[in-house]
Amino acid sequence: MIAMPWVYIEDLSQHVGEEVELRGWLYNKRSSGKIHFLQVRDGTGICQCVASISDLGAETFAAADHMGQETSLRVTGVARADKRAPGGYELGLKSLTIVSPANDYPITPKEHGVAYLLDHRQLWVRSARQHAILRIRSEVESACRDFFSQRGFVLFDAPVLTPISCEGTTNLFQLDYFGERKAYLTQSGQLYAEAGALAFGKVYTFGPTFRAEKSKTRRHLTEFWMVEPEVAYFDLDDDMRLAEDFVAFIVGRVLERRAADLQALERDVTRLEAAASTPYPRISYDEAIERLKAKGMTVNWGDDFGGDEETALSEEFDRPVMVHRYPTQCKAFYMKQDPARPDVALCVDMLAPEGHGEIIGGGQREDDYETLRNKILAHDLPLAPFEWYLDLRRYGSVPHAGFGMGIERMTGWICGIHHIRECIPFPRMMERLEP
Amino acid sequence: MIAMPWVYIEDLSQHVGEEVELRGWLYNKRSSGKIHFLQVRDGTGICQCVASISDLGAETFAAADHMGQETSLRVTGVARADKRAPGGYELGLKSLTIVSPANDYPITPKEHGVAYLLDHRQLWVRSARQHAILRIRSEVESACRDFFSQRGFVLFDAPVLTPISCEGTTNLFQLDYFGERKAYLTQSGQLYAEAGALAFGKVYTFGPTFRAEKSKTRRHLTEFWMVEPEVAYFDLDDDMRLAEDFVAFIVGRVLERRAADLQALERDVTRLEAAASTPYPRISYDEAIERLKAKGMTVNWGDDFGGDEETALSEEFDRPVMVHRYPTQCKAFYMKQDPARPDVALCVDMLAPEGHGEIIGGGQREDDYETLRNKILAHDLPLAPFEWYLDLRRYGSVPHAGFGMGIERMTGWICGIHHIRECIPFPRMMERLEP
Repeated sequence: MIAMPWVYIEDLSQHVGEEVELRGWLYNKRSSGKIHFLQVRDGTGICQCVASISDLGAETFAAADHMGQETSLRVTGVARADKRAPGGYELGLKSLTIVSPANDYPITPKEHGVAYLLDHRQLWVRSARQHAILRIRSEVESACRDFFSQRGFVLFDAPVLTPISCEGTTNLFQLDYFGERKAYLTQSGQLYAEAGALAFGKVYTFGPTFRAEKSKTRRHLTEFWMVEPEVAYFDLDDDMRLAEDFVAFIVGRVLERRAADLQALERDVTRLEAAASTPYPRISYDEAIERLKAKGMTVNWGDDFGGDEETALSEEFDRPVMVHRYPTQCKAFYMKQDPARPDVALCVDMLAPEGHGEIIGGGQREDDYETLRNKILAHDLPLAPFEWYLDLRRYGSVPHAGFGMGIERMTGWICGIHHIRECIPFPRMMERLEP
Repeated sequence: MIAMPWVYIEDLSQHVGEEVELRGWLYNKRSSGKIHFLQVRDGTGICQCVASISDLGAETFAAADHMGQETSLRVTGVARADKRAPGGYELGLKSLTIVSPANDYPITPKEHGVAYLLDHRQLWVRSARQHAILRIRSEVESACRDFFSQRGFVLFDAPVLTPISCEGTTNLFQLDYFGERKAYLTQSGQLYAEAGALAFGKVYTFGPTFRAEKSKTRRHLTEFWMVEPEVAYFDLDDDMRLAEDFVAFIVGRVLERRAADLQALERDVTRLEAAASTPYPRISYDEAIERLKAKGMTVNWGDDFGGDEETALSEEFDRPVMVHRYPTQCKAFYMKQDPARPDVALCVDMLAPEGHGEIIGGGQREDDYETLRNKILAHDLPLAPFEWYLDLRRYGSVPHAGFGMGIERMTGWICGIHHIRECIPFPRMMERLEP
């Protein structure tokens, strides 16, 4: 047999009329007795392969009839355009070689429970729906990089192993560091990003972050990915403009490049299109409280918002809404108080539409040495581990602001997925550390 | 004062003749008595600002004379091209506002010890040399993304928290997972990437990885970043071609975009230019042993290579060299044995020139169920935690290969930096967890 060029299904359109080789797995098949219609997937797409007994010979043709789902195979044939075929192209087979069989594949078209599917995550990621979600996740991450790269931000990786928490030690994973001391897994790269911003002007971190929270909601993972820009000389208004530009860019990118995946998920893209342009609405926390009260919800000034309040607020808008200036008492020590009104912080949360909750949290950071020092003490945190952070206010402090965006929540909203556990290849939750 | 447009120094060339505002920090200054020459840095570059007493007024002019290094300031003035100025542009000042003073900045032009500098890493990252290294790191990471993005790879984030190690538990950080069980910090995303490759055809992971190794060499960090591609239907030859294309792409990108940073580091770029084109030399482990013996080194077939052997081998080539087919006994259980010669594995290490050591390790993975199962047992590893991984061989196994590249070692080689601790914003080593 002469070696054919190996091509990916996503590139088939460039090879119409040519004899090519596909390497993949059997996704589905049907047979008319004289002709097999094999749906072959290779990770980049699905291609219908049409085979007759005269093309394959009796032995191979018979073997093809007994291949189980996910059998790996190599096929050669001529690519042709066919509007009826899924993907628009099909292959008229000339040869078929089984690479490795698959019998009794554990994930069948029947309904499986989520726990079963998560137990088989290594195989579940091959299914059409998971494929679409994880391709969109990859696009979201790629869009994040491109947005910051185009704007001259330096990628400034923050450490995962840290000596202290930036928001208290309650929800921290801790580990033994060479039998000498404790280390903690980071909850946020922000403090380090601040050092980066004062060195490079504009930076972002992008990596896994960890919360040992004992919560089992659809919005929580113990390990999730965050992207966190930080910019010197930015105030809260600059920060909100950056945040809306960022989210609109990502949504626009996914709409443009992953339309087929959104369609596979049956996502109503009209719900996303509004979010691809700016500005986004901005309301103050004060106004949010009034709106919630007007809806009959029991909420008092000073309360932090939970999932119910976020959902109620987001329902009022067709695109993400930015809620700014929460009560200082709700927020972390590093948030800058509004000089005009010290009971509120110069912070912002962005809430995704349709009840997908907070996708961004951020704001302006306290840049005055004495004020920050006093706030650390007021939060009952030790000073020593924050001396390096205080240095950023000792030597040429400047106003600065930033935010963090959770990749899984962002992906979940874009995909219209209820539980974010499907938005990461191998989710980690309180009761799940496997596979 | 009318608000001027705030511009970054790297964009000054687009504003010649215009009045603009810079926001930054004082990097250096000298004065002729009647004129101050202020070097202002804003993270994107350094701009010389020229101020006279008549421009600033007596009071500001006098204050400017007493500003310490790293004082933060905002200046306005007219941008003009000046070939003598560092960066090619300077600003004729019209106003200067001190944002926040900096007195007795801890890092001065005098020589500091490395421990002192690492203790002040939050400030050290502002210095010219660290700036250049970390900008090149950022470019390396961006090039990694672009390379895989252009080739249709899906980013497939692997978990950091894992239930088991893929290379034994000796060098693992372990932590308590909700009081229920132990979890470990990942040493490599590879096993998960394999599941991704069989689902998406071609994927890569990119994230922090951890080794609790008690080694204090210049090539080791306890936390370092790895990028790991994995491709279905790839064999060792395909893998080596991908590896050399990848490294050549990154080197070419840095040469093209970060020439000024390489110059700031006084890097001899002629040493890099050869590495921007392929092919790279390939030698077998057998041949490597012969070469080392010919150099008079004491090394026997079956030994793994350490830093000395890697340096000796790399000295013979002007670009990275790929050493393939190491003894099976040196390598992890998942490496596929060469069917033609079971005493060697279908693996490859890429050694950077000039003694920068191994930058890539990878190869073809064992794809036969029975063989893999027996190797897990032969390595005294428990089967249960690997059942999910064995599933990849149970259901439509295919040949596949991949590799991992360490970002800090790659950056170190490109920058010509002796110790990789300078190649990450906040290095973590056996005795360093701070700042």
